[in-house]
Amino acid sequence: MQAIRQKEAGGKLVVESIPIPQPGHGEVLVKMIASPINPSDLALLHGNYLARNYPFTPGLEGCGVVVKSGGGFLARLRVGKRVACSPNPEGDGTWSEYMITSAMHTITLPRDLSSEQGATLVVNPMTAMALLQIAKEGNHRALVNNAAASSLGKMLIRMTIQLGIPLINIVRKEEQLSELKKMGATHVLNSNDPSFETELQQLSHDLHATLFLDAVTGVQTSLLLRAAPRRTTLMVYARLSGDPMEIDPGSLIREEKQITGFQLGNWLKSKDILFKLRFINKVKKHLGDSLTTHIHQRLPMEEVEQAIAFYKENMSN
Amino acid sequence: MQAIRQKEAGGKLVVESIPIPQPGHGEVLVKMIASPINPSDLALLHGNYLARNYPFTPGLEGCGVVVKSGGGFLARLRVGKRVACSPNPEGDGTWSEYMITSAMHTITLPRDLSSEQGATLVVNPMTAMALLQIAKEGNHRALVNNAAASSLGKMLIRMTIQLGIPLINIVRKEEQLSELKKMGATHVLNSNDPSFETELQQLSHDLHATLFLDAVTGVQTSLLLRAAPRRTTLMVYARLSGDPMEIDPGSLIREEKQITGFQLGNWLKSKDILFKLRFINKVKKHLGDSLTTHIHQRLPMEEVEQAIAFYKENMSN
Repeated sequence: MQAIRQKEAGGKLVVESIPIPQPGHGEVLVKMIASPINPSDLALLHGNYLARNYPFTPGLEGCGVVVKSGGGFLARLRVGKRVACSPNPEGDGTWSEYMITSAMHTITLPRDLSSEQGATLVVNPMTAMALLQIAKEGNHRALVNNAAASSLGKMLIRMTIQLGIPLINIVRKEEQLSELKKMGATHVLNSNDPSFETELQQLSHDLHATLFLDAVTGVQTSLLLRAAPRRTTLMVYARLSGDPMEIDPGSLIREEKQITGFQLGNWLKSKDILFKLRFINKVKKHLGDSLTTHIHQRLPMEEVEQAIAFYKENMSN
Repeated sequence: MQAIRQKEAGGKLVVESIPIPQPGHGEVLVKMIASPINPSDLALLHGNYLARNYPFTPGLEGCGVVVKSGGGFLARLRVGKRVACSPNPEGDGTWSEYMITSAMHTITLPRDLSSEQGATLVVNPMTAMALLQIAKEGNHRALVNNAAASSLGKMLIRMTIQLGIPLINIVRKEEQLSELKKMGATHVLNSNDPSFETELQQLSHDLHATLFLDAVTGVQTSLLLRAAPRRTTLMVYARLSGDPMEIDPGSLIREEKQITGFQLGNWLKSKDILFKLRFINKVKKHLGDSLTTHIHQRLPMEEVEQAIAFYKENMSN
């Protein structure tokens, strides 16, 4: 089969002929139909996201048909089904003609979803739902997200509206602000506004927003941490600025704030099977309402251009 | 009564005549006999440690005789007793002729302890025990401490030897290294050694040391976090370097490390009364063995000189 491969961290992508892999017990072989490019794919390809064994096949989600089972109840049940799927944590990804993955990482698709729609069912919806689950487990009454205009940010807006959870959205441009307001977002702040820090401080204290989702890092992390209420957890889930974070120790010692990280694969690994099954059902429930809009905005032009530039630069074949 | 007062963050200390305070329900009035200068006092006086209402009386621990009860079983029980004591979280401290505090913050002293010994029973032993309690609650199999030659560091060495918990000690000088080895410390690393980072990485992975106690901050925090095993909690409990910390977001996202803060007052506030009583009993049990040495090294010359310099500079009366 043909597969897109990367041979070293940050290296060029090449198309290679490699053997079709064989599924082990509990795994399935998926013949891929479609797979998207997510910001997390690019982070991974740039080598700053996940530790990997090289060479490997990228692609964190996709859609395909299960053509073979490696045994086990769930895996056998999937044979012949069109599924949304994601690879095993350290395994090869979806940018390939075939992929093996645990049957646990597949969701059977309803007929009324196109394969293109099915290809984006995993990363953003599961990440959004995982972040809300973490908020619930930590008894956080409200959230802050500083990548509010991203696909994930918009999905978070829709889910929090449905669930009635207050969300403070941070954007960088006025047009994003009005776009999110139009979607129904109540609290949207522009980080380039001179009164941004004061407003964020006021609003996060008023709403008791003690979970800050940081996808930007760099100087914005220091600002978020200053503005955040006592006992806030700042959770870093991406590093769009590419910069390290400068942290004031006093905010940790004195104000009991803490800094954690989030990565979907790691988070899922820490959960048992029963939790995962319940979690996937929860995610599915929220897809119905939000999918159409989601797919529309699945790859904002900025990200597409970034991805294309990356490909032009890196694809040798 | 006479009391040492600070009128603003970082301001000069003055001796003032103020009224003797009256204990409320559950509180006692202590006539002070002795009180030490801890590094945490100096941090507080420099204004970088705790938020305070000014003016206030410093002094985070001491020894005295309870001369009055404000009512309540425990408070009445203490009247006439010589106690080790610490102030209420936001209340006035021990550098005064009299202090009021919750009866919960007093420990009756056995006869064979001098008042000077009794004056240092609270901050270091309770902090050390609290850090070990946090290690236990987090299922950490071993610890790292980067202020190993401090009074607190030495107390941690003694307690972990008694409890059989592996502790990796970090010092800055060769003479500290041999001093701690003589005390019985098994693992001592010198941070000025060229192979320090490699050795710390190796040793912390071998021992599964996933709780890193950071009293230094600044560049050392970045180094500790790099060397630490996956899923390490780095807990900042002081900022001896005075510097902010530069954090690599990847260590949080990818390696599931997290950064928290510790401050004894905040930590105790989060616990219920039953826990506190049990905790104080645990602390007492460990005092017997380590007290003599502890008192000997209670104020290392460096700290005394720093304190004296601070007083010379700041005392106007």
